[in-house]
Amino acid sequence: MTLMKSWLESANSEDTPFPLNNLPYGVFSMDDGEMRCGVAIGDRIVDATGLEAAGILRADPEADVLDAPYWNDFMELGPKAWAEYRAALQAMLGAGADEATRDALTTYSVPMAKARLHMPFRVSEYTDFYAGRHHAENVGTMFRGPENALPPNWLHIPIGYNGRASSVVVSGTPVRRPMGQVKAPDEAAPRFAPSARFDIELELGAIVGQASDGPLTVAQAFENIFGYVLLNDWSARDIQAWEYQPLGPFQAKATATSISPWIVTAAALEPFRVDAPAREVPLLPYLAEPGPMLYDIALSVGLTPAGGRETILSRTNGRELYYSAAQQLAHHSSCGCPMRVGDLLGSGTISGPTKDSRGSLLEMSWGGQEPIALQDGGSRSFIEDGDTLALYGHAQGRGYRIGFGTCTGTVLPAEAPPG
Amino acid sequence: MTLMKSWLESANSEDTPFPLNNLPYGVFSMDDGEMRCGVAIGDRIVDATGLEAAGILRADPEADVLDAPYWNDFMELGPKAWAEYRAALQAMLGAGADEATRDALTTYSVPMAKARLHMPFRVSEYTDFYAGRHHAENVGTMFRGPENALPPNWLHIPIGYNGRASSVVVSGTPVRRPMGQVKAPDEAAPRFAPSARFDIELELGAIVGQASDGPLTVAQAFENIFGYVLLNDWSARDIQAWEYQPLGPFQAKATATSISPWIVTAAALEPFRVDAPAREVPLLPYLAEPGPMLYDIALSVGLTPAGGRETILSRTNGRELYYSAAQQLAHHSSCGCPMRVGDLLGSGTISGPTKDSRGSLLEMSWGGQEPIALQDGGSRSFIEDGDTLALYGHAQGRGYRIGFGTCTGTVLPAEAPPG
Repeated sequence: MTLMKSWLESANSEDTPFPLNNLPYGVFSMDDGEMRCGVAIGDRIVDATGLEAAGILRADPEADVLDAPYWNDFMELGPKAWAEYRAALQAMLGAGADEATRDALTTYSVPMAKARLHMPFRVSEYTDFYAGRHHAENVGTMFRGPENALPPNWLHIPIGYNGRASSVVVSGTPVRRPMGQVKAPDEAAPRFAPSARFDIELELGAIVGQASDGPLTVAQAFENIFGYVLLNDWSARDIQAWEYQPLGPFQAKATATSISPWIVTAAALEPFRVDAPAREVPLLPYLAEPGPMLYDIALSVGLTPAGGRETILSRTNGRELYYSAAQQLAHHSSCGCPMRVGDLLGSGTISGPTKDSRGSLLEMSWGGQEPIALQDGGSRSFIEDGDTLALYGHAQGRGYRIGFGTCTGTVLPAEAPPG
Repeated sequence: MTLMKSWLESANSEDTPFPLNNLPYGVFSMDDGEMRCGVAIGDRIVDATGLEAAGILRADPEADVLDAPYWNDFMELGPKAWAEYRAALQAMLGAGADEATRDALTTYSVPMAKARLHMPFRVSEYTDFYAGRHHAENVGTMFRGPENALPPNWLHIPIGYNGRASSVVVSGTPVRRPMGQVKAPDEAAPRFAPSARFDIELELGAIVGQASDGPLTVAQAFENIFGYVLLNDWSARDIQAWEYQPLGPFQAKATATSISPWIVTAAALEPFRVDAPAREVPLLPYLAEPGPMLYDIALSVGLTPAGGRETILSRTNGRELYYSAAQQLAHHSSCGCPMRVGDLLGSGTISGPTKDSRGSLLEMSWGGQEPIALQDGGSRSFIEDGDTLALYGHAQGRGYRIGFGTCTGTVLPAEAPPG
């Protein structure tokens, strides 16, 4: 696949995250504060809510599905409508569009630099998986020792746990360092204190675009996934270590989960599908993949101290996952669990095999034992107040890229509890 | 507290679960299928949606909060509105009401026996706790041995995990036996099979009626809880045993969670508050209780085989919990996790100290080693297809009771997976 040309020049640059091939979906507001559905193209946002209201481009002839500050109603329409809408947008924004169409789209678009971005969809429920093998091995080694690094079920199950949907925020939202119960191994009793080991997790988030009410095959699950975002599952490692046995992470993961503001559609990522790593043990038939279902997406993490310069801490890739989002969704539904439009599935931390490709500070600093040097001098084992953490991601085509935009958040100091 | 007299005779019986002291909130439909908000009183349901539309009783003078098949919008109004509405209903249904009021309430009510009951509220998110000490010890002994029965954090943290809101169903909904990955200790690899150890968990569910966006004190959390339901957290023990390490229960608990159809308000349960058990170790200040916050609620579990008679398997009480719902909610919010109207908090299984007071079959049959005898002959270690499981609960006042109605579900055979 090569660059699809647009009449909008800024969409034709090799470097723009938002060429005509991409067309990700978001929610934006301008000075009047009204939230509208938008589509990113080059340096502009197409006002999809406006196009619908004007009758210029409608996803559903009967209903206003974009007259809302989220894309959930659009997702409800299903894969056929998704494909038709995308094709229509590509025609209207493509180099072959006529003058009247160009004028209309120019009228119904705004400069991205002046827009504020919001959550692109309403999160129904949020599930976080653990599908990165290097991450599971690294964390397992630190928490349980090298001989118990990979849990016995890990090569059979895309392990996941339910997270907290209410804590999902859009990129740019500040994140307050949590308070919580912590207890060091040498302490007699726990303390209630600010987390001293506050961390990121570099993940991809998959958005479920179709509801289901029983077990899905992997192929069905793949069709039900609408798109992807970058996802940072902020994690308080000290709270986690004390609370997670026996029922899993809870308050350690409920302060915030940040996502990038644009939903990059599965359609835009289609040319970048890659096979999963070789299976060390056979998967059960209900998890068998009919084709490549991971994506070749370059990912990186940057840390910027307050008033300082950014250090890129790590570079990794979506293909490092062991289980695809489609396999996760198939497993999620296997017990009959109803899935809903707007469900968000975090991939789990995506670490590569080397130290400079790890997706969390816990791994990069090996539990704080090997602090990471910063560009400006200084170092980090975990996040300090005022630090801004950013995730970046794109799929690289020939002469174009499918970008996700940034997923960023600045950490604020903890606040004393009430009462 | 003694019985409050109503002009509706069926509400004055010692045995009715729904005297004037109770007035629980639900959603019902009649033959036309339209779902409306209702209030249970004696053998009738007051049509709260109808009273609102007619201007006879309004919770909010400005907005129709009951013109919906759920009580969430009503809950949004907050504790002052809850108290005023309840007081108004008690006056209109009380023995002192005038003739015109009696006529109106008779017009705007229906016989309960002819109504169908639905989910009384929209579940925003569902969290399940583990706050019953006897249950935690019993299960810990079976899963990890007597020396590791109670996890080291258990006496300090109201341990919980996020469940799956989409799987919560109202009493009466059939429950299909789940398929899932299971692996016995002596098997080399897992199988995908129907759960052979399908179980119940007898719990109380607390409903969060006010949103919050930061840490709550226990006193604030108590005020934010709108009411309670009986809750059966159906659990596939064989799926759970294989999947739960290291991130907690997932598919084992996502098939269904049943709740009783009536929200019994915190106000109705106020006379039944009791102290928590003595604390074996001091709790951290953020979990300190300003007063008694558990409830004296008699609970029981019945099992009815297909075509057979019911056996009451177990009797226990809400006071057997170690942590109150208010403590659970305070802990839930302690990291800054936003809580929302309609969040449902399961208490965790409520087992008493004796064998006949255990709240799950896993405990009653001690992992299947000691099958439970049934009235009709036969026995159970876990649930068989066609069995109907029922939870019952009430608080006993002097000459009246605050009943919850039944929480019931019949188990259907597993279905083969798709594809």
